[in-house]
Amino acid sequence: MPDSLPPDSVGLVEPQTLHFDEPLALASGQTLPHYDLVVETYGTLNADRSNAVLICHALSGHHHAAGYHSLDERKPGWWDRCIGPGKPIDTNRFFVVSLNNLGGCHGSTGPTSTNPDTGHCYGPDFPVVTVKDWVNSQAHLADRLGIKQWAAVVGGSLGGMQALQWSLSYPDRLRHAVVIASTPRLTAQNIAFNEVARKAITSDPEFFDGRYADHNATPRRGLMLARMVGHITYLSDASMGEKFGRELREEAYKFGYDAEFQVESYLRYQGERFSETFDANTYLLMTRALDYFDPAYDYDNNLAAAMSQARCEFLVLSFSTDWRFTPARSEELVNAMIAARRKVSYAEIDAPWGHDAFLIPTPRYEDIFTAYMDRVAREVQQ
Amino acid sequence: MPDSLPPDSVGLVEPQTLHFDEPLALASGQTLPHYDLVVETYGTLNADRSNAVLICHALSGHHHAAGYHSLDERKPGWWDRCIGPGKPIDTNRFFVVSLNNLGGCHGSTGPTSTNPDTGHCYGPDFPVVTVKDWVNSQAHLADRLGIKQWAAVVGGSLGGMQALQWSLSYPDRLRHAVVIASTPRLTAQNIAFNEVARKAITSDPEFFDGRYADHNATPRRGLMLARMVGHITYLSDASMGEKFGRELREEAYKFGYDAEFQVESYLRYQGERFSETFDANTYLLMTRALDYFDPAYDYDNNLAAAMSQARCEFLVLSFSTDWRFTPARSEELVNAMIAARRKVSYAEIDAPWGHDAFLIPTPRYEDIFTAYMDRVAREVQQ
Repeated sequence: MPDSLPPDSVGLVEPQTLHFDEPLALASGQTLPHYDLVVETYGTLNADRSNAVLICHALSGHHHAAGYHSLDERKPGWWDRCIGPGKPIDTNRFFVVSLNNLGGCHGSTGPTSTNPDTGHCYGPDFPVVTVKDWVNSQAHLADRLGIKQWAAVVGGSLGGMQALQWSLSYPDRLRHAVVIASTPRLTAQNIAFNEVARKAITSDPEFFDGRYADHNATPRRGLMLARMVGHITYLSDASMGEKFGRELREEAYKFGYDAEFQVESYLRYQGERFSETFDANTYLLMTRALDYFDPAYDYDNNLAAAMSQARCEFLVLSFSTDWRFTPARSEELVNAMIAARRKVSYAEIDAPWGHDAFLIPTPRYEDIFTAYMDRVAREVQQ
Repeated sequence: MPDSLPPDSVGLVEPQTLHFDEPLALASGQTLPHYDLVVETYGTLNADRSNAVLICHALSGHHHAAGYHSLDERKPGWWDRCIGPGKPIDTNRFFVVSLNNLGGCHGSTGPTSTNPDTGHCYGPDFPVVTVKDWVNSQAHLADRLGIKQWAAVVGGSLGGMQALQWSLSYPDRLRHAVVIASTPRLTAQNIAFNEVARKAITSDPEFFDGRYADHNATPRRGLMLARMVGHITYLSDASMGEKFGRELREEAYKFGYDAEFQVESYLRYQGERFSETFDANTYLLMTRALDYFDPAYDYDNNLAAAMSQARCEFLVLSFSTDWRFTPARSEELVNAMIAARRKVSYAEIDAPWGHDAFLIPTPRYEDIFTAYMDRVAREVQQ
């Protein structure tokens, strides 16, 4: 926490838990009889409820996207640099809704929640949830908040997939979709990295087939490895080089297997910290949602045919050094939108930080994002 | 094994074990009192012993580079496509020497060998070995074979580092160095991937601080994960896409965490097979040798100053889709050679297979490699 709250912060925020009693039918064929969603909101909903923006989170994200939970909190929400007064998603103009997705481990119903059928935590019995399922649950959330149509649905990475899916599942319930550093579907390499992460978790002897909670265990080693390999794919070769190069932790080679290079101890630290806070079953679920996302699948692999379902306008942004979801993947999506005669603005942002660039505003990224959201705000009755 | 030995095969070959009684001083400050090297040779050494070519292997390689050990062997040696009668390294003209490096797990002295100090296997007490150490041991091997000067030292990836190190450690003992799909030093991202692999192994409860043999255990899960993540970095995004795409194992999504996509089961299979045959301590050692390799380090990070030690001619080859050791890294090396006024031929080969492309001859690769080695052979008294 800074000494005082910065003037462009949404300030102190409090999450709220919304309970949904209507059963949710999932893509897998299973049904969630009832569920909770943890939500934060920033800004004020206008009289005709037309200024609402939905933020969708990525793999390890959650509802706490902006502001501080307390004055003791060291860091603000995960997308604080883009959400706040005067920021690209301007909370002086928009009512911003951010949630923890179903299957998450930050308060919304997920593998760590109690299974009503057994009275124990779901663990591995929590159903696989897809991007489509998330969007359906978010539509129920919109109903609850009285939002018939979002001014925009916005997300980066896996969050961008949700914004895209909104445009297909509920074409009339959003006016804009902002799809950042995302892809219309994973490549074999993307799936392969997810599989390594999953295998690291499921092969950890502390995983107990997902029932680690019943054994008072945590598959920490597996989660750590999953995060380490994930983390490499979020950064660019160049940004890792710039940050660490071949810098040693001590002056000379020690000729051993302890962390010797700075990049090794950084990666270990990231992995260990993550393994202490994240749920392993949730990690499996989130990576599987990534794997399964493929809007063209229902249209004979014709992405343009899928996109012709959409009615909203799109902003698509990619980053030059993102090798996880390369600019070429965004272009594939944009080409399908153009072929389907949708309205789309696209920019590839030159930024050195790889996939993580979507979290770090650079002048051109900020300018384009701000200009687009300004246009969205101008359409809204203030 | 094919029904009959192909005419361009070196045929049936037999490895031999050479024992070295002279102690070998290592870069780490430790000394190996004596050691064995397992070696295969193909072709005939000419009268003045001037037609010898040394093959250096990569991370998981070994001495069996060409031909068959028996008529029952399913596959020939790992570089059979480049070594044999009429192949780029033409065994009608060259006497080819291929060894398993020190620290390996295919017969040369390494972590699985008996430690003369204890009577038990070395395990984690086997000293860290560097590329420089390997080249020193290979120089003793050359002495033993009566080879004062190699016609060429040839290697891909980590093998290319050894070829490069030969030119610096023993400038007068080789006439050509062929450095394929290699790099003058690892990037932070390269080290990071190695660290994930090592952490997968060392965090496996069956690792027992490297003393798994004493516990009748094997850190199979760790080795499997290490290989899975390594394997992804050997292939290109495009070649994985071409080979597997998003192809499913069964007709429809099963909505679970078992292998669902073809690429998942392929990767699991590769990892499992590797974990049954490779030694974990050797894997640590090989990846550390990669990390430490940095010829510029001794010259105030000036690679050109390092290269000015060399006397041989160089062929440097890189592959367009190799994202592990990109063409840019080879160009860095070539630029340093040019700055040091060395003779160097360089080509970037357009090939879709990523880092693995060095094992797979394409017409242009084969043509350039063959033409260069033909020039090397023409300098030799046949």
